[in-house]
Amino acid sequence: MRLLLLNPNTSRDVTELMRATGAAAAAPGTEILTATAPRGVPYIATRAEAQIGGAIVLEMLAEAPPVDAAIIAAFGDPGLLGARELFDYPVVGLAEAAMLSACMLGRRFGLVTFARALVPWYEDCIEAHGLAQRCAGVRSLEGRFASLSDVQDEKEAQLVDLANAAVAEDGADVLIFAGAPLSGLAARVRERLPVPVVDQVVAAVKLAEALVAQAPRKATAGSFRRPDPKPSHGLAPALAARIAHTD
Amino acid sequence: MRLLLLNPNTSRDVTELMRATGAAAAAPGTEILTATAPRGVPYIATRAEAQIGGAIVLEMLAEAPPVDAAIIAAFGDPGLLGARELFDYPVVGLAEAAMLSACMLGRRFGLVTFARALVPWYEDCIEAHGLAQRCAGVRSLEGRFASLSDVQDEKEAQLVDLANAAVAEDGADVLIFAGAPLSGLAARVRERLPVPVVDQVVAAVKLAEALVAQAPRKATAGSFRRPDPKPSHGLAPALAARIAHTD
Amino acid sequence: MRLLLLNPNTSRDVTELMRATGAAAAAPGTEILTATAPRGVPYIATRAEAQIGGAIVLEMLAEAPPVDAAIIAAFGDPGLLGARELFDYPVVGLAEAAMLSACMLGRRFGLVTFARALVPWYEDCIEAHGLAQRCAGVRSLEGRFASLSDVQDEKEAQLVDLANAAVAEDGADVLIFAGAPLSGLAARVRERLPVPVVDQVVAAVKLAEALVAQAPRKATAGSFRRPDPKPSHGLAPALAARIAHTD
Amino acid sequence: MRLLLLNPNTSRDVTELMRATGAAAAAPGTEILTATAPRGVPYIATRAEAQIGGAIVLEMLAEAPPVDAAIIAAFGDPGLLGARELFDYPVVGLAEAAMLSACMLGRRFGLVTFARALVPWYEDCIEAHGLAQRCAGVRSLEGRFASLSDVQDEKEAQLVDLANAAVAEDGADVLIFAGAPLSGLAARVRERLPVPVVDQVVAAVKLAEALVAQAPRKATAGSFRRPDPKPSHGLAPALAARIAHTD
Amino acid sequence: MRLLLLNPNTSRDVTELMRATGAAAAAPGTEILTATAPRGVPYIATRAEAQIGGAIVLEMLAEAPPVDAAIIAAFGDPGLLGARELFDYPVVGLAEAAMLSACMLGRRFGLVTFARALVPWYEDCIEAHGLAQRCAGVRSLEGRFASLSDVQDEKEAQLVDLANAAVAEDGADVLIFAGAPLSGLAARVRERLPVPVVDQVVAAVKLAEALVAQAPRKATAGSFRRPDPKPSHGLAPALAARIAHTD
Amino acid sequence: MRLLLLNPNTSRDVTELMRATGAAAAAPGTEILTATAPRGVPYIATRAEAQIGGAIVLEMLAEAPPVDAAIIAAFGDPGLLGARELFDYPVVGLAEAAMLSACMLGRRFGLVTFARALVPWYEDCIEAHGLAQRCAGVRSLEGRFASLSDVQDEKEAQLVDLANAAVAEDGADVLIFAGAPLSGLAARVRERLPVPVVDQVVAAVKLAEALVAQAPRKATAGSFRRPDPKPSHGLAPALAARIAHTD
Repeated sequence: MRLLLLNPNTSRDVTELMRATGAAAAAPGTEILTATAPRGVPYIATRAEAQIGGAIVLEMLAEAPPVDAAIIAAFGDPGLLGARELFDYPVVGLAEAAMLSACMLGRRFGLVTFARALVPWYEDCIEAHGLAQRCAGVRSLEGRFASLSDVQDEKEAQLVDLANAAVAEDGADVLIFAGAPLSGLAARVRERLPVPVVDQVVAAVKLAEALVAQAPRKATAGSFRRPDPKPSHGLAPALAARIAHTD
Repeated sequence: MRLLLLNPNTSRDVTELMRATGAAAAAPGTEILTATAPRGVPYIATRAEAQIGGAIVLEMLAEAPPVDAAIIAAFGDPGLLGARELFDYPVVGLAEAAMLSACMLGRRFGLVTFARALVPWYEDCIEAHGLAQRCAGVRSLEGRFASLSDVQDEKEAQLVDLANAAVAEDGADVLIFAGAPLSGLAARVRERLPVPVVDQVVAAVKLAEALVAQAPRKATAGSFRRPDPKPSHGLAPALAARIAHTD
Repeated sequence: MRLLLLNPNTSRDVTELMRATGAAAAAPGTEILTATAPRGVPYIATRAEAQIGGAIVLEMLAEAPPVDAAIIAAFGDPGLLGARELFDYPVVGLAEAAMLSACMLGRRFGLVTFARALVPWYEDCIEAHGLAQRCAGVRSLEGRFASLSDVQDEKEAQLVDLANAAVAEDGADVLIFAGAPLSGLAARVRERLPVPVVDQVVAAVKLAEALVAQAPRKATAGSFRRPDPKPSHGLAPALAARIAHTD
Repeated sequence: MRLLLLNPNTSRDVTELMRATGAAAAAPGTEILTATAPRGVPYIATRAEAQIGGAIVLEMLAEAPPVDAAIIAAFGDPGLLGARELFDYPVVGLAEAAMLSACMLGRRFGLVTFARALVPWYEDCIEAHGLAQRCAGVRSLEGRFASLSDVQDEKEAQLVDLANAAVAEDGADVLIFAGAPLSGLAARVRERLPVPVVDQVVAAVKLAEALVAQAPRKATAGSFRRPDPKPSHGLAPALAARIAHTD
Repeated sequence: MRLLLLNPNTSRDVTELMRATGAAAAAPGTEILTATAPRGVPYIATRAEAQIGGAIVLEMLAEAPPVDAAIIAAFGDPGLLGARELFDYPVVGLAEAAMLSACMLGRRFGLVTFARALVPWYEDCIEAHGLAQRCAGVRSLEGRFASLSDVQDEKEAQLVDLANAAVAEDGADVLIFAGAPLSGLAARVRERLPVPVVDQVVAAVKLAEALVAQAPRKATAGSFRRPDPKPSHGLAPALAARIAHTD
Repeated sequence: MRLLLLNPNTSRDVTELMRATGAAAAAPGTEILTATAPRGVPYIATRAEAQIGGAIVLEMLAEAPPVDAAIIAAFGDPGLLGARELFDYPVVGLAEAAMLSACMLGRRFGLVTFARALVPWYEDCIEAHGLAQRCAGVRSLEGRFASLSDVQDEKEAQLVDLANAAVAEDGADVLIFAGAPLSGLAARVRERLPVPVVDQVVAAVKLAEALVAQAPRKATAGSFRRPDPKPSHGLAPALAARIAHTD
């Protein structure tokens, strides 16, 4: 089974962090390919960046080698529904996978993230997945950090404090460290937290495996059937070909 | 007052149709500028195309001359929240303006559109605006039409039939002909319908005027404040500059 | 275009305050007529008063000269749905217009008002419009004020403080000073607030203009069609005539 | 225990029908007083009439003799929240009592009524009580009937057919014949229906008794505390006195 | 009328407390029978215990003498829907009866209980009844108490403090002391609270009476019709007979 | 990894059907243990049976050998929340796993089942998981079938017809054959259906694996922490020991 872990951000070291986290959890026989956005921002943090990054996701998927499933590896799931519609294999978002996993471990999950700018976008994402009633709240670090790829080390103590506060004050039954740069943190700190912790990348890899196990066919009916062929102008060639059914 | 009517589709004749419809309703002193997508698809009809088109909207806004407000002139409102976050003036979506206007004319509105492919995207849009309970249903033509810009003429009778069915069978109190190519149809057929009809472009122009009348400042707090400057790579220069605060 | 700004309260100076606020925002050609409740309370603040005031609104509309649209100029919108059903022209509520305008400027709006007694009624109104999820909260002054028509001057500093708290603590993206006596305050204090502020009267006038631009016909089907003629006993003559279709 | 069964309509024979229905179900010691609206319409059927009728309810309550609880005996509950706020004893609505009773007998209730004009108002009422998810639908007779007070006899067969359709097609677990003129019908036809039937007046009398058994004090805090004294102008004297705390 | 007050807990003194509370409120002619769980836990406090206790409820009902209605006398209503489906007479839950009564006395009710362990189960119960929007919050004592049947005496002052906090801080319009051991407390402390207080057992008895007054037939259609006969293995004989239609 | 596939029904051949379906999808290293209810009904179909069966689930789990996770292998998830609270390893329900998987493959899923009696219970289950908005509807066979374990063969054509109707008429994007006896059907018929099909047992096994990959700790805080020790009377010894913390 070949999974594409697609980072819509341009940060290659975050891609590698996620790959390593996912590989450790993958079943025997699961091969994880990666792709890092060739253009865009170092990390998507706002609605505008998610709009742009989601379009880049579609370009990247159109250019990707054949796979059995893909993971949109940014919490917030930019481009998820468009990708699910346009491509033939299952596509899973990092936020979606983490939150659905958390639903099986408690009534309400708490999100902990590393930058305040992310919060409105994450809240929109929770709402879009219809999971607002399952979310106990979103807590974030304030202030600056030295490096995106090391933020989980630099701020480990504060992140654990926020997670404990999400349990004690917000009523979270289960925790998610949200945001690609926090991948792998769960395993390191779970002993310091009183409730289960979901790792977003582990969730995405395992749920992608779960979907592939269903051998789901591409819909030819319903709201996720592949759209009819359509001409376009000025789009990335592979994406244009996918839209035109000339791929 | 200068309003930018921004068509995220590449169909220039639809832009002109919307401009004419809007100009007839604009207040004295309202000047309507237009922009048509330089790349993309002739008309956005799916989630994937909306993802791409919404990113193009942001590019177009970044390249636009100074205006007092902008209208994203595709029903479905691609890129709306990102635009509202990134730019300093009010931005209104065609769907948003039509649906909020309809809320003041009845309890539930019925949507009538010209292509089945549009329905899932429109339903997502209704949901995203939190208006699902105000929507009596979405009805669409089946089958092909000769030309996008003439679809409202070619299919006028069928569209009126669908609208009447939305009232009689779905319980709509008010109607919206949804989709940019249907702009201006309301005025022509309203005598044949038993409930008020909202024209999406008229709604957008008047609600844009309404927002400009509030002289709203750009938020420096809350979830629509302008994001902090951020570097990017490979984006359209004007958009990159806007994101980097170097515009 | 003739708009009737109908104050369901008996406070004539508040009517004048609203008229002046609205006139400054009206389009060229919009004429604002006013009416002040001939009976009732100085300002409606409770559910019981709204029940009574809403019935008086219907009497006042039945006695009004011909207009193109009417504004029920009390935040809380007493009698709105009844008026929309019974009369042939568009009718807009102050709360409805302000809140729908705010929806286009942010995700969640904060209300700030001048008396605690108003809060339950306003909360019912928000709920009735289906906008509870868009509301960040309602904050109010505590304690007494010297004069209804001057409360916005007397308490300006405290009202601005509440508005800032609605942003900082409740997560409001946009603000509304709610309650007729606060009309016009937005323009004066917006520089002291970090998010857009909606003036309720400006919103109502502009949205009434927006509805008139749609030239909406009176429904003959659906839930807002004019009710069939019915006899009555002991009602105000003009209202009885409207209900009996003898007007 | 003295219960006031207050008919907001002017139809005295409907008042008597309800009184008789209620008396047969009342506990020993429960005395049912009645009042019929001195002005208004023969039967409230629309939002406008409910607005007017609800204000008349408040006048009637202000003029009523001392009671232990009151029933607003029109399905749709005109003036209910205002009455609950303004007066010291429990006030129950006919719709509220019937629907809450039905919630204890099934998952979803079906409403059957006698005139199409009533449906939008009833739907608003269901929504206002937060019970939309418990309602399987509202069905109504079409066309005219000879006499309001005899409609349940004249149309008995059709009403039973509608009720059976509500079970078979809408999935109702329990039925309510809605509208004051249908009081007492349940007892007569229940053998012809496959699910429990709630009589609205029986429900209201028994739930009023249930509230009196709690000996609930008048709130001095919260959203139903009695409003502070307020002057008014031109209202019915007893109502004005109640509002002014001079009663 | 014979009501079965069925305590799913094994605490006989709590059964007696509830019987006495209910008897004082019952109408003349209402006879209250009691049953106490022959196996199970002293008081159900968790979801697991409610699962077990609810199954014991069904056994107890199958073994009970003929009655006109039954009350599942544990706040949380273990086994309620199953009982309502399986048996021919009305079945009411303590939580359901208390919360529906409270809905007629205010907009939002506050729950006050005696042990933190109960809170998640109560919250699930509120959600299951579709009443989350009517609940202002659940407050509970912290720490241990000497005896279940005396907890309302031992902790009276703290329970009153919590109730006052529910009004002042959570916005409760009406209060419920939740949990069988708190039965009867309402009558003793209501003078110390500024809003109406609902006693759960009084509510259950009176609402059971209200349902019996409807003389509801057992559904033979809809989702609460008696299930078809089915064999079983190893269940309590009376329950097996009920399921097999051999009772 | 050891997974316990626990059948709350007494049908051993259905247990074997599920085991075989699950084993084919399990990752290398996943061992599937099974348990079949020693008492209860052949297949749980109603709320009452689910109440009883859920209590038996808890007994069975208390008596089970050590495992890494458990699956409650009845669509409807009897006892799920109680089990999640009481035991230390992850517990997944068949319905939960199938529905959450379906959420990643479309906007709305359609359920197809084999007996009308199951529908209300399934609808309650969908609601309890907060997924009503994601469900396009529940369709079921009417009438009798020869044998529970062969129903999927006997009725294959009709089940496929229902599934196609769920897509064409209800708008399902993805399908679930619901009910333990339909396990494995998806793989056989998916070529005859135009949208992805989720197999409930495959979903449960893969999601159980996904949860084990998170190595979730048992909560010591939040609403799913293990309840404090409590005495009980008359319960199955292993269950009593678990509740008493003497296991």
